[in-house]
Amino acid sequence: MPKTAGIILVGNEILSGKIVDANASYLCRELRALGVEVRRISVIPDEVDLIALEVARFSADYDVVFTSGGVGPTHDDVTIEGVARAAGVAVVRHPMLVALLEAYYRDAITDAALKMAEIPEGAELLSDSSVRFPTILMGNVYVLPGVPEIFRRKFDALRERFRDQPIFLKNVFVSISEGSIAEQLTALVREYPELLCGSYPEFSNPEYKVKITLESRDLAFLDRALAELLKRLPADSIVRVA
Amino acid sequence: MPKTAGIILVGNEILSGKIVDANASYLCRELRALGVEVRRISVIPDEVDLIALEVARFSADYDVVFTSGGVGPTHDDVTIEGVARAAGVAVVRHPMLVALLEAYYRDAITDAALKMAEIPEGAELLSDSSVRFPTILMGNVYVLPGVPEIFRRKFDALRERFRDQPIFLKNVFVSISEGSIAEQLTALVREYPELLCGSYPEFSNPEYKVKITLESRDLAFLDRALAELLKRLPADSIVRVA
Repeated sequence: MPKTAGIILVGNEILSGKIVDANASYLCRELRALGVEVRRISVIPDEVDLIALEVARFSADYDVVFTSGGVGPTHDDVTIEGVARAAGVAVVRHPMLVALLEAYYRDAITDAALKMAEIPEGAELLSDSSVRFPTILMGNVYVLPGVPEIFRRKFDALRERFRDQPIFLKNVFVSISEGSIAEQLTALVREYPELLCGSYPEFSNPEYKVKITLESRDLAFLDRALAELLKRLPADSIVRVA
Repeated sequence: MPKTAGIILVGNEILSGKIVDANASYLCRELRALGVEVRRISVIPDEVDLIALEVARFSADYDVVFTSGGVGPTHDDVTIEGVARAAGVAVVRHPMLVALLEAYYRDAITDAALKMAEIPEGAELLSDSSVRFPTILMGNVYVLPGVPEIFRRKFDALRERFRDQPIFLKNVFVSISEGSIAEQLTALVREYPELLCGSYPEFSNPEYKVKITLESRDLAFLDRALAELLKRLPADSIVRVA
């Protein structure tokens, strides 16, 4: 069965408009290229009860879950505790993480910084030579940091774990409006119910008015559906196929 | 009581990484400036059952709800039906919207285009001279389109409806790491439990290492909390306050 994913962004700073998230959009693009279907993104506040509920729900609903943010040493970093509560386990300090933090901070380590050595009991630590600090995996939940550079580095170190059958995509650009192609698209998805078909109008593009997207994991099926669509559309409305 | 908001983005194209959403980040910034607290953002697929569940939940949990996307004439535009199901009402064709569409398309109107005249039964239509097409309001749910230019124009026409007591913000930039200020922040939020306090590390900024944000709707309270924080931090660690 193809893999599904859910993404939870823990971030008051996103909800309050202070920053624009870059991690979910990155992850959606990367996972799609790997053949993984992202089914839901939630952005929630830095509140441990909300995080616990959301992680439990996502963990049950999707094959893999990614959290972003809330893993530093300060009072508002409560993702680890939320993930632990979702799994019904305690938060414990991991000796290897303590050693890594002590090496990093040398003599200046504080109790607060040692918070970053905490993991949900029973979590795995995924290490790799390309990242300084391992990634925490609790059940099917990957706990990633909010800082985009580190988020990407950590995901990139893990990416091959998620590779699945590719999802193939064809784009058809047309010069007529959505209202003029809607009936053809409805007929197409009725005939090809397994087809993923999207229709995206453009209001300020001189080249085309609508981009139609057709997707499937089955390339031969996709080609048949594409041929059928091209037959149904007025020939002079097709700007290009890509 | 201060207003809370939730945002639902209906968008396969976001989940599949084809486009990066611009509407939620716009709305978070604008609503915050108006004094409205966004509590949750969900990005979900163009599937009517999922939309109905999410809209019903958000509508119960937050004072106002905004949906973005899924309101065109094609098979994948199912937001109106989802909002109607969430409210337990039928979808009906509104005569004023039919007239507007007929005027817009002139003789070329199709049955599919008339789908854009559909609303959940009992919804209000909010008109304004600055937008061509009214906005649908069903209970506390504002139904907005996904196209960013139109989304913004429609929101801007409505914005004064949402104005509440402002949320004041102070930023403190410090030159020491999060691990070194965590204890002071924990003590501060213990003493000022109503304070919204965030801590955001920067790993590649030469000017500072952490931005601390303090927020409240009560300016005098905020000033007291700020003075307390500045007293607690090492004086030579404070880069600037803004």
